[in-house]
Parts: sequence; C-alpha cells; structure tokens
Amino acid sequence: MDAATKAAMPAVSFDTSPDRYRHWKLTIEGHVATLSMDVQEDAGLSPDYRLKLNSYDLGVDIELADAIQRLRFEHPEVHAVVITSLKERVFCAGANIFMLRGSTHAWKVNFCKFTNETRLAIEDASEHSSLKFLAALNGICAGGGYELALACDEIILVDDGNSAVSLPETPLLGVLPGTGGLTRVVDKRKVRRDLADVFGTVAEGVKGKRAVEWRLVDAVYPTSQFKQRVAARAQELASRSDRPASGPGITLTPLTPKVTENSLTYSAVSLEIDRDKRVATLTVSGPEGEQPSNPAEMLAAGDRFWPLRAFRELDDALLRLRIVEPLIGTVVVKTRGDQAAMLAMDELLIEHQNQWLVREIIHFIKRTLKRMDLTSRSFFAFIEPGSCFVGSLFELALASDRSYMLDDPDQDNTIALSKMNGSVLLMSNGLTRLETRFLHDPDRVRDLLARGGTFDPQEALEAGLVSFAPDELDWDDEVRLAVESRAALSPDALTGMEANLRFAGPETMETKIFGRLTAWQNWIFIRPNAVGEKGALTAYGSQSRPEFDFNRT
Amino acid sequence: MDAATKAAMPAVSFDTSPDRYRHWKLTIEGHVATLSMDVQEDAGLSPDYRLKLNSYDLGVDIELADAIQRLRFEHPEVHAVVITSLKERVFCAGANIFMLRGSTHAWKVNFCKFTNETRLAIEDASEHSSLKFLAALNGICAGGGYELALACDEIILVDDGNSAVSLPETPLLGVLPGTGGLTRVVDKRKVRRDLADVFGTVAEGVKGKRAVEWRLVDAVYPTSQFKQRVAARAQELASRSDRPASGPGITLTPLTPKVTENSLTYSAVSLEIDRDKRVATLTVSGPEGEQPSNPAEMLAAGDRFWPLRAFRELDDALLRLRIVEPLIGTVVVKTRGDQAAMLAMDELLIEHQNQWLVREIIHFIKRTLKRMDLTSRSFFAFIEPGSCFVGSLFELALASDRSYMLDDPDQDNTIALSKMNGSVLLMSNGLTRLETRFLHDPDRVRDLLARGGTFDPQEALEAGLVSFAPDELDWDDEVRLAVESRAALSPDALTGMEANLRFAGPETMETKIFGRLTAWQNWIFIRPNAVGEKGALTAYGSQSRPEFDFNRT
Repeated sequence: MDAATKAAMPAVSFDTSPDRYRHWKLTIEGHVATLSMDVQEDAGLSPDYRLKLNSYDLGVDIELADAIQRLRFEHPEVHAVVITSLKERVFCAGANIFMLRGSTHAWKVNFCKFTNETRLAIEDASEHSSLKFLAALNGICAGGGYELALACDEIILVDDGNSAVSLPETPLLGVLPGTGGLTRVVDKRKVRRDLADVFGTVAEGVKGKRAVEWRLVDAVYPTSQFKQRVAARAQELASRSDRPASGPGITLTPLTPKVTENSLTYSAVSLEIDRDKRVATLTVSGPEGEQPSNPAEMLAAGDRFWPLRAFRELDDALLRLRIVEPLIGTVVVKTRGDQAAMLAMDELLIEHQNQWLVREIIHFIKRTLKRMDLTSRSFFAFIEPGSCFVGSLFELALASDRSYMLDDPDQDNTIALSKMNGSVLLMSNGLTRLETRFLHDPDRVRDLLARGGTFDPQEALEAGLVSFAPDELDWDDEVRLAVESRAALSPDALTGMEANLRFAGPETMETKIFGRLTAWQNWIFIRPNAVGEKGALTAYGSQSRPEFDFNRT
Repeated sequence: MDAATKAAMPAVSFDTSPDRYRHWKLTIEGHVATLSMDVQEDAGLSPDYRLKLNSYDLGVDIELADAIQRLRFEHPEVHAVVITSLKERVFCAGANIFMLRGSTHAWKVNFCKFTNETRLAIEDASEHSSLKFLAALNGICAGGGYELALACDEIILVDDGNSAVSLPETPLLGVLPGTGGLTRVVDKRKVRRDLADVFGTVAEGVKGKRAVEWRLVDAVYPTSQFKQRVAARAQELASRSDRPASGPGITLTPLTPKVTENSLTYSAVSLEIDRDKRVATLTVSGPEGEQPSNPAEMLAAGDRFWPLRAFRELDDALLRLRIVEPLIGTVVVKTRGDQAAMLAMDELLIEHQNQWLVREIIHFIKRTLKRMDLTSRSFFAFIEPGSCFVGSLFELALASDRSYMLDDPDQDNTIALSKMNGSVLLMSNGLTRLETRFLHDPDRVRDLLARGGTFDPQEALEAGLVSFAPDELDWDDEVRLAVESRAALSPDALTGMEANLRFAGPETMETKIFGRLTAWQNWIFIRPNAVGEKGALTAYGSQSRPEFDFNRT
C-alpha cells in the first residue's frame, strides 16, 4: 500500500480480551451476561475524532466481536446476553460520523464489512448456540446503535418521553443504514415497507407506543420499570437455552503470530506476501501428532485443539489481509499435512457435534469460511503432492474462485471429502459449498459424499471437484499465468464479479445484507452527494448545509 | 435538468413498430418467428458512435422490446421465436462501448435498467405465455450479446472454429456483465462458479465442445448443419406451446400523448411536472362507459380496451419520466373514476384469465407495475374522494413508498381489494404486493381478501392498507410537508433506501439482477478504474492501456 493510504489507516489489532476492553464492560450473573457499552471518547483508533455519545469505530466493534466469541467458548453457562449502555439516557449514537468522514472509501467498506460480520455473529450465536440476546435500550439509539439492537433477538426501549430508535443516515448524512439496518427492518422485524420508509427518513426516529406498533421494538417500559423488566425478560430468554448448566469453558489465549515485513506465521497458518506480484500465499497445516479423542480431552486441550487453533489463526490472517494489505489482490491457497489425521479429526467433530464445545468449534469453522467468502480478494487453491485438501480443509478449495490440481503420474496427489462437507459448514446462502457448486446436479452432491475414498487428479476433475488438473509439464506455466493475468485485471471489476459468482442459489437475509444493501451503500459512499465537497457526510457537523445534485439515478 | 445533462442525452421515443425498425427484421413462418439483428451502424441514437458488429444502444433495445411485446399481442399464433443475426459470422458484440464511454452515469444506469427489463420480458413471455425463445448464435457473441442469449430458453452456437460466447467486460473494460450476465450464468444456467470465474475473465470467451461442457450453451453444430438444426429445434419448442393455433391478435397502435413543457397527457393517464418542487403528479383514470363483457368483445376493442390502454400509457409515462425527467424526485400518484366499474373490470379479467389475450393483458399490467417498483423515484399515493384505488389500481398505492388517505367525515373516500390483488400481479420477489406488505402476518392477506367490500379511511388504516389517514384539517399541511421534506433529501440515499425497502421477502434471480448485480455495477460505473482518465472503459479502443489503482475494496 502506498504511504498515503497507510498513513490514513490506523494500526489495528484484532486481539483483545475483557481485561483490556476500553469501551465495553462484561459482567456475568448466573446464566445472564450483561455487555455494557461505555465508549471512552478519547480512545478511538485515531486521535482525529472523539467517540462521543457511545458512538463507535472499528476498535469498539473489535471488542464487541471478541466478547461474543468469548461468551461462546469461555462461558457455556451463559444462556442470555443483555446488551445495554452505562451512559445516562444514551444507548448508542451509531458509527462515529467524523471517523466515517475522515476515512478512505476502502476503510469505510472494510469497517462496515466487519461490523456486519459481528452483528451476524450475534444472530449465529442465537440460532446455533441458543445464546439469546436482548437489547436493553436505556436511551437514544441511533443509526448503527439501532442496527446493533436489530441483530438481537428482542429489543426493549425505555419509555421516558425522549428515548427513540432512529435510522438518521438518509436524512442527516445522505448515506444508508448499511450495517444491515434496512434489510433487518423489513426482512427480520418485517416492518411494513411504508412505515420503514417513514422511519428511514425521519431523523428524530420513533419512540414509545408507536415504536412497538410499527414493530421497531418489542416492548417499551417507563424508566421506573425498565431495569426490572429487562432482567426478568433476560431470565426468560435464558431459560429457553440448551447450553450447559455450568462451565468450565475454555480460554481463548492471544494469537501470537511472528510478523515480518512479508510474512505472518502462526502455528498452523502462514501468509507470505509478494508485494511486487500483489500475491499472497496462504498455507494451512492439518492436525499433527496425537489428538484428543473425546470432548473431555478437547476441553483439556482448550484453544490448542487443532480445529479451533487453525481456524482462529486463519480468521485473524484474513482480517489482517483485508485491513493491512489492500494491494494484495490474489491469494494462493495451499494446505499440507496428514490426510488421514484430518479425516479422523472430521469424524471426531461430527461424532460429537451436539456437545457444546464441538458445536462451537464447528460453527466457528463455518464463520471463518464465510469470512473467506466475503473477502474481496481472488482465491486460487493449488492442490499439490503433500497437501491436505480433505474434509474441512477441502472447503478452502471449494471457497476459492478456482482450484488447480497437479496431475503428475510420478507423485501421489489426492483430495477427499468427509461428512463435514455434507451439511454443517453452510455458506451465507444457506447451502453447503458442494450444493452451491453443483446447483445444476443436486444428486451429484449426494453421490460424491456417499462415494468415500480419495480422488486422484483425473477423478477429481471428472467429478467437478477441481477446476483444472494440469500435468507436470504444464503446471508451472499454467498456474503462473493464471496468477499473473488475474493480477492485471481491474480490482473493482473483480470485487463485483466475485461477489456475484460466489453466491449462486438462494439469497438469505445475510446475503441480502452483503449483496443488495452493501453494494448500494458502497455506491453511495463514493457519490459526491455524500462525500463530495458539499456532500451531506462532509457537511455534517459543520455550519454549512449539504448541496445536492438532485438528478435521480 | 441542466442544459449540459440534457445535451448529453439523446432524444428518445419508446414508440416504434416493425415497419419502422432500423436494426431488427421480424419474419414469421407458421408458428415460428425469427427476430434477426442487423444493426445499422450509423443509426444510433447519437452520431457520436457507430454501432459496429451488431453492437447496440438504447434505440436498438427499444425495437427489441417492441418486437417481443407485439409478438405477444399481435401474433398469438407464434409459439417460438428464434433470435439470430443477419451479419456474417457475427451474432452481437454487446452494448456499444463508445456509447457507454460517452454516456453520463445516469444514462448508463437507465440504459442497463431498460435492457434488463427487456431480457426479463423475454423470460416472462416464456414462463407465462409459453412463447419460447431460441438464441441461434451464428457468429461471435460477446458481452451483452451473450446476455441476450442467456435470456432465451436455449442457446445454439455455430461450431466454425471461431465463434465463441464471451463476457469480456471484466478483462477488457473493467466493468461487469451487468445486464444479468453474471447472475444468469450461475443461477439460471447453473454454470459452476469456478468455470464462471474463468469464463468471466477470458476476453476471447469459450467455443465449441467446451462451451457445451461448461453449460454456457446447449448445443453446437457445424456451419453446414446450423440452420437446419436451429429450424428443427425451433419447431420442437413451438410444439410445446399452449398458445392459440391461429390469430387474429390485436394491433398495438401508437400512443399519442399530448406533450407540453410541463405535462404528458394520454387518454387514461396524465403526468404533470412541477420542476420548481421537483415533483410530478401521475393520475390514472379508471374505465368509463360500456366495456367488453367477453374475450370476443375484448378482441374487437383491441388496444382501446381500458386495461391495456391505461397500463400501456402508464408504462410509457414511467419510461419517459426515467429518461427525460431525472430531476423529478417524487411522484404523487392519484387515480380517479368509477370504483364499481374498476371492480367489474377486475372480475372480468379474472374470469377469463386463461384466455390468451386476457393472459397477455394481466401479465402486461404485472410488468408495468414492476417497472414502477424499479423506478428510482419516490412514489406517494394520495387517496382522495373521487379516486379509484380499488383492485388493480390499488396496486399503485401498494407499489408506492407511502400512501395518504383523506379522512373527512363530510366526504366518502374508500378503497377496495379485488382478486387481482390476490395472486396474479406478482412483484419480482415472487410475492404479491399484499404478501410483501404483510410479511409479518400472512393470515391478514387471506382475511383482507376474503373480507370484500370497501374500506373507509379508518378501516383502511386499521387494516394496514394505507400509511396515514389525516383528517381534513391536517391533510393539506401533512401531504405538503411529506412531499417537501422528501424533495430535500439526498437523491442517491433515497435510491438506495427504496431499492432495499421495496423488496422485502425472498430474492429471486430477477431481484438478484436488480439488487446485487446492478448495485455492484453502478458502483463500478463511477470508479476511476473504469471511468477515470486512465480507467479501462476510457482507455478501450485507444492506444493507451488502462492504469489501475490496485487497492482492493
């Protein structure tokens, strides 16, 4: 990245823990956790803005994402989470406008993507781990604040004559509530579209009884009853959970990759950067040595247990790639390891998939793979002798835009499927990657899963599991040319193309958020009416009023 | 619109007929029509570009849309359509690149929207009128040319060692195949995403056997067999149709609105423009006087039959509004007429919905309402005494972003539903507008449809059928303020907001094209990597190569 871009982007680490939170307080009482927002104004990622009124930047959201993750792994005894604020009469004012205004387009896009993933992680925890979320809106709740509430299972708003929920992005800033707001209002809460239209254009929002009537919140209570009602409702939500009655959980210790100018090296994952070619090589190593054979041993292994460790490392590498290495357009995906050990690991996970820790691990693998689907870089999987593209790790090839498998008669080179490819690792479209790949032939998915055994390059090609299988004479030229020609294309066209080709099949609320809503928001984020000299985002908070080009597009 | 914008936009009429086509030749033999592209290079809408190699501009597509429409209404005896070209070794080179390069952003967006609607009209004709389409690719078929083929039921490509199908937008122009190309490749033809990725990045495309193996075309035949195979396949497709064995159809005569500086006046539709306020008033009048009572009488009435006449006029008014009046941001929607006559008309249409002409009329009403859903202007329905918001015409209120119903105890003011609101007039999401409106309460749709009778303002409000019902004291201020405050908002944010709120519920291939694909394309269409001084679209055809900012977003 050039110096100007780098300077415009604050240093970011995705590593944090509750004892280091600056903006959130996490407390646990029995089966109910309370996650309280108390944003420290002067502790934004950049000194250029102050995080007033519980407004947030990426740093605030990294803590929120961390808290949700830890509740799942470290606190299985927590069955419900109350999200509220410690600020008087203020729940959350949304994403910090001065941060947005001062950010590059790429930063805005990556910021919104991460915050969207965090909100989807809340819904994922509710749906798949029966960890229920209650938004307790103790005061004004605007923009991204309301979008956070929308991600919760239920929303309770204080009825104090003043506190309202609002989406003021369109009337005040000339942009969209792009962190799922518009989608969740009409698709999750099923607010009538005409009421949503009014709500989305009225800066002051909607409060009290009308907020309930319009389905924007589930209940309102006067200040005198608010805390008690929230507590009671949280207990009710907690009582419906199937999570364990008690811990212990496991501890998520810090990831400590070795970082050099051109590489990131974790225990099972490495990322090598070639800046001249704008290419990175991502390598994931399969499980090695003795592995736990039952949940008790997994619990004892904690975050050193391979599936959790490897996919946490992969997740971190993808996030750093997005934020820190915007010029790397293509990622070559490789694996290595013992295929039998990897398949045994998948067997073990499937066998115990209903145990709480295994459930968490499987859904974490799923979310990490989704993070890959949503990373706007080209992924090419190179399947070579010694690689470990089997079962869960074969999902890396399926998630890639293309795969190349070396067909050299002198060297063994195989891939294999496992039950992990068959159901649990769903994409945001609600299908497995195999189902998405073979939309034209659903029977083939069943047949391939039933087949068992390994696939050599010709079998893999015949089955449609890899894109190409060049022989040893062609391999070097073919993969080199593929990478070089990719690197020459317009990065914007590739981002748009990949976003369209990766998600064939049904759209869900989740894909609508990343497809329809995000794409429109990205368009608006570069329009002069928002970010131009006289645009609404530029003018906000200044003395001047925005001036629009009123041509409708 | 300012003078510069106006100058950049060629004069457009949507009125044409086969005897006036410059670019297509329509021939009919028995049950098979052949629509042959033969674009006249120097007959583009603007003299700034030449339409070489069967490349097209909006004028070419208006003729195509007209031909498809006329085949449905004028030629019920046609059961299959072959789309081919009269140019040697060239089917179609796609949208004209020099036209795109010279166009404003708004023009590009409106051009793509119209061409998308035309391709969806082909699919609509196939699905709902069993008029089947066969793309007979007699030569190179690139970009928009292949996207046109993708809209057909089947694609046959000549196998002459040279002719290929291709989507060269990303590699050559740094933009997307945005007329449904990416979506239809993976969602309609269900091409594997990795093969689609390769196909979408290889400018020369794919030909011969590989094009069949990759599912890009249905068959290839050598030149010697091509015509005969196409003819035989067209006969087979025609034989599956349930259209009438013979005509006559009805003739679609030219619409002749009275056009003044500030108004468009048709027989049943008028559009009044208030440029200072950037508001238009669209008024639709219901059926008047004696009406046909059976299909024979409808056939005799032809295009004077009210439903066809009124919705053709509405369709034309919407298209003109989009292209000619970009500064009009808000449209007030009104109706007037005899509610009983309108409800009787709906009864008649439903009673005969399986008769070919009635079927065509109903699906045309449906497509016109979809055109409204996809028009990026704010629509506010004003329901006042004397209005005719019942049945089919009530869809105009449901399609609006909001509705206001005057509640004056001294004046009757009612709305009513008919069976036309219950099933046939589906939105692009596959649901009726009532189903979309009441996603949270599907039973209410059934109950409201079963209820019968009229709704007064309070009943309508209670039922959720209108947004607001101000009384006579508040009415003037409330509707004036609603319109004024709408006009002050960012037109871009409104376009994005409306595109997200109007399509709650399931996404279909159709909504994916207008949501995900179009929104990404619009983003790319304003990025410097495409349209900047050194962008790929700018550089195309010149001596210089594009220079990209390689930061990935």
